[in-house]
Amino acid sequence: MQVNNQSRNNREIERKFLVKELPDRLKQARRCVIAQGYLAAEAGGRHVRLRKKGKKASLTFKVGRGAHREEREITLGAKQFAALWPATVGRRLYKLRYEMPWKNFLIEIDIYRRKHKGLVVAEVEFPNRTACRKFKAPAWFGREVTGNKRYSNVRLATE
Amino acid sequence: MQVNNQSRNNREIERKFLVKELPDRLKQARRCVIAQGYLAAEAGGRHVRLRKKGKKASLTFKVGRGAHREEREITLGAKQFAALWPATVGRRLYKLRYEMPWKNFLIEIDIYRRKHKGLVVAEVEFPNRTACRKFKAPAWFGREVTGNKRYSNVRLATE
Repeated sequence: MQVNNQSRNNREIERKFLVKELPDRLKQARRCVIAQGYLAAEAGGRHVRLRKKGKKASLTFKVGRGAHREEREITLGAKQFAALWPATVGRRLYKLRYEMPWKNFLIEIDIYRRKHKGLVVAEVEFPNRTACRKFKAPAWFGREVTGNKRYSNVRLATE
Repeated sequence: MQVNNQSRNNREIERKFLVKELPDRLKQARRCVIAQGYLAAEAGGRHVRLRKKGKKASLTFKVGRGAHREEREITLGAKQFAALWPATVGRRLYKLRYEMPWKNFLIEIDIYRRKHKGLVVAEVEFPNRTACRKFKAPAWFGREVTGNKRYSNVRLATE
């Protein structure tokens, strides 16, 4: 999940699941198209991502893997984005994202397009580790893939 | 050397040398303090660099190694820079840079500080491969280290 605070250290705590079937309520959820690409990605998971979400462009630094990660993000102007985006050729992915409130959480459902068409993933972000651990997944969630490199966006974009 | 065109593909052609002795003319050269750090760096040389040069902040993507590299750079606002800079802890370097005209070229002389105090390197950028190949180094240049990983800034910053 994106955060957008430009001045402090951001830690994200989240879990990721495959999706068995899309819930009916999805039709009412907010949705947007996401295009993202990777400028550089280290073997340990540390990377710099460019993203266009609707009309908003951003650059995000992430480090760590699994449920707990540090993340820093800045908003980019259109010219800044345009100058860097060509550097991500061959390292991009495209998805349709739905943002659906569920109990006290916001579930992000990503329906991948193009080369990963057919893959559907849900992510839930938590305010703390306890909420993260206690989370009971809804029935339409499939297998948990938190920290599974196979489903990391960097891997999906570059494979 | 930095380039700052935000819309096209930038290739830089340059050579790097150690410096045996500083030239007298250095006193008249323009100089500035540079602090730079690396957000992410792949083993093959591809990386994303943050830099503060005087008061100007920038983010640069580079790929390739040796005399010919692709480079893309954007200027960052102060807030954008401040949001990302903490992510470069432990991957930074500091230097004093002199920019000195010499024949038809501009020589950049970097005097490293802190952990690399004592290291002095000169870089020359060329308009094309022929000029690059034909370049005759001035007498105060030492050994050429173009493409030598030992003297790459990424390596110096992270070692």
